[in-house]
Order: sequence, then structure tokens, then C-alpha cells
Amino acid sequence: MVSKNDRKSERIIEKERRRKVEDDTVWLFGLHAVRDALVNPKREKLRLVLTRNAADRLGDAVGQSQMTPEIVEPRRFDVPLDQGSVHQGAAVQVRPLQWGSVSEVCAPGSVKPRVLLLDRVTDPHNVGAILRSAEVLGARAVIAPRRHAAPETGALAKTASGALERQPYLRVPNLANAMGALHQMGYVLIGLDGEASETLDGFMDVGPDVPIGLVLGAEGPGLRELTRKTCDVLARISFAGDFGSLNVSNAAAVALYETTRRG
Amino acid sequence: MVSKNDRKSERIIEKERRRKVEDDTVWLFGLHAVRDALVNPKREKLRLVLTRNAADRLGDAVGQSQMTPEIVEPRRFDVPLDQGSVHQGAAVQVRPLQWGSVSEVCAPGSVKPRVLLLDRVTDPHNVGAILRSAEVLGARAVIAPRRHAAPETGALAKTASGALERQPYLRVPNLANAMGALHQMGYVLIGLDGEASETLDGFMDVGPDVPIGLVLGAEGPGLRELTRKTCDVLARISFAGDFGSLNVSNAAAVALYETTRRG
Repeated sequence: MVSKNDRKSERIIEKERRRKVEDDTVWLFGLHAVRDALVNPKREKLRLVLTRNAADRLGDAVGQSQMTPEIVEPRRFDVPLDQGSVHQGAAVQVRPLQWGSVSEVCAPGSVKPRVLLLDRVTDPHNVGAILRSAEVLGARAVIAPRRHAAPETGALAKTASGALERQPYLRVPNLANAMGALHQMGYVLIGLDGEASETLDGFMDVGPDVPIGLVLGAEGPGLRELTRKTCDVLARISFAGDFGSLNVSNAAAVALYETTRRG
Repeated sequence: MVSKNDRKSERIIEKERRRKVEDDTVWLFGLHAVRDALVNPKREKLRLVLTRNAADRLGDAVGQSQMTPEIVEPRRFDVPLDQGSVHQGAAVQVRPLQWGSVSEVCAPGSVKPRVLLLDRVTDPHNVGAILRSAEVLGARAVIAPRRHAAPETGALAKTASGALERQPYLRVPNLANAMGALHQMGYVLIGLDGEASETLDGFMDVGPDVPIGLVLGAEGPGLRELTRKTCDVLARISFAGDFGSLNVSNAAAVALYETTRRG
């Protein structure tokens, strides 16, 4: 026989379980981001909410995903999105992608392995743009701490313009440990710092196959002390008198371009 | 004697005049952007609205500007800003800066004259980031058409992080005409195009003092037909398989870096 207390405990446990599931999921929105998620077989999808109009426009992607959309009236688009999110009548609840460990994703082997590390870069628009640049310029991964980093949100997905589905974005428990793992694989870790005496292109006389990790801090505070110390060298972008003045995604793009061009 | 009709006409004319003044002005907001505008002697300022707290924090800048702020209660911050604008209790109504003509601002003379031209890039965050990169990497000017470009708004000023006050942002009646004026001054105009067969670094065997204009289109549509035709050459960014995938401000930063590094 199940006591009242047991039932109460069960309810609490169930509630907790649901809350945990919610915590671990994110709503992507907008036609492009939703389409990209739907056609990505690696993306675990939970719920799909569409207006009739959006369902028509996403027909092929919905078919491919084998999901059954919840069709809603445009005025009853009742999905927990940030205010002002331009959802275009399409939202999908998903789980973050599992890319694997730093050692797996960043193992050298191909030519010019490049990795970006973000130290407390929290703006989703910046991280979205960085994922795009990383994909276009061929970086292995973008690595950020699990806390104090831009989470995989709808806003990030939108700025990433598809790259969120394709470009490994690894959230690690501890950035310094991830840097250690990269060191062990032979990566040279370059911290970007506007005050550094070396310039990025001056330093780039490493061999063509030396793996490079570029470490960027948030605009303003820059790299944290422990992160700075864990870098092999600090360097600034040439011509950019004060690196701090470049938007962090622009700095990431230029640095990645410079280290891909050379080396 | 003034008739009733005359007074009515006067009122209409006055109203029209005020509307025109309003049209030609913009509200900048946020502590940083307002401070930058206040200490810029070239910036024509009309009204300054501050909370007591913001007034305390901007004391020196307000003094330097010789303006008398309108002090308001935080709850009565009645300034026409876009919803969700983080104004931090500070807003200033200003006129766009007058930088002068293309011929004046872009006249070659110093080494490596560089200019960015934007063909219908309308996102204020992208243009703000581009102004920052242009300033940091030493471009003479960012040129955009008067219509179909991001206006000098508060959102742009915020992303530009001070660069709006310092980096010439020229709004011209006609982009093709501006390109013609640059041609006459000896500029080589390079249109960025992900489909181009030439790469930007492959093309960069021009002399060190040849002035270069980089022409970027909006994400998606890219360069308009007339703009493409008016360029001397089309080029893509090396390693970036599909230029269209780079965020436009990141593409601008990389291209400016590449043409500043070489040449």
C-alpha cells in the first residue's frame, strides 16, 4: 500500500525530474534556426511548436525530422522565449548537442589544428558570430566554461546562423583543465592581450602543423589571472593598437585568420 | 494686424520646423555613449536628460560640455528610445556629426589609406562593430548610402563603444558616385564576394601606398549589381570557403586586417 507521504515524495521527485529536464533544454526559434535543428540528426528534439504558415514553409524539414508539430494560432504562440525574440512562428525545444570531450574533438592529426577558447565571453551575439567564424575558418572547436559563458540559447543560434548545429561548442567544467588537456596534445596556447609586447604575426614562426589554441577574454575585463598564467604566450593583434577596442568576435576572426594564414 | 489665418500658418510652419529638427536628430543613451558625446566638442548637442545618479557619475563630462542637464526621476525617464534600450538613466539628443565630403576625408597622403564601403548593411550592431574595427585598424572612413544603411542611432553608438564619436562615418547620397570619387583619387576598389575566384591575399601585390577601398554587401543579398560593376576587382577571403557565412563585421575586420598587413 502506498502511503500519502510516499505519494507526496513521488510527486516531488517527478516535479524535480521535470525541472531538471527543462533546465537541460533550450528553445531555438526563427525559421532558419528551427530548420537547421530539424534536419540535424544529431540534435535531440523534444517539442516543435509552429504556426500553420511556418509549418508550410518548413514542410520538408519537419518531414525529415519525423516530428509531429503542435500547430498553434499566431496569437497563441505560448513558448517561453525572451521578450522581443523574432520567432517567425517557429520554435523547437532541444537538448544541447553532445560533441564529446576536448581530447576527442581537438586531437591533432589534420593540418593546422586550431581551437578557440573563450574566458567568460557571455554575450550570445558575440559567441554566435564566433561560432560562424570558427566554422568558416575551419577551427576544430570553440571551448568555453560551463558557467559564465553564453549558453546555447535561441539568440545565440540565430546569430550563429546554422553554425551552432555544425561547429563544436564545448562547455567544460573548468577552462584551465581544458587548457591542460590541450597542452598535453601539443597545442601552443596564445592568449590575446592588447598590452602584450609580442604581436600575433610576429610569433607565428611555428611549424605548419603545430596545433594552436587562441584564448580570448571578455571585452573589458580581458583574461582572468589563472587563464593568463596557463597560456604559453600573450600576444596582441598587429596594427590594433588597443586590442580591447576590437569587438571580441572581430578579434577572434582576425586572430583565427592570422593563425590559419601562416603556420 | 495679424489675422487668425496668419497665426495658424505660423503655428503650422513652427510645427513643421520642429518636426524637421527632430528628424535630423538622434538620442544617444547609456553612460558610455553619453559621456563620449558630451566630451566631443564637434558633437552638436541639444538636450541632456539624466537621473540624479547618472548626473553624479557623469559630473566631469557634463561640466566639460557646459550643458545644463534636465534631471528626472528614474521612473519618469521620458525620452523616445526603442523598447528595451538600456539607458542607465542617461540620454542626450544630438545631431549627426558632419565629417565633410568623401574627397576631403579620404584624400590619400599618409601611408596605406584604407576605406570601407557598406552596400545596404542595415544592422546597427554590425555597423557599430565595423566602426570599432575601422578605428582600431586605422581606416580613413566608413562610407554608406544615406538611405538603406544603419542610421546613427543609440544602438549603433552603444555597439561602436565610442568609435562613433571618433571614426568618420560618411552617409552619401549615392554609393556609386562615392566610389567614382575614390577612383579619381587613385583608390583600388575591392568588392568582397564569396564566389570570387581571386583571394584577397592573392591580389594584395599592389604597392604599399596604393589606397584601397573594401566594399561589403549585406549578409544574404551581398553586393548590388551596380556596386559590383563599379568595383575594380572582386575577391574572397582566403580559407573562408563561403564568405557569405562570415558575419559582415567579422568579414570587414579580417579584410581590413589583411589589406593593412600587406600592401
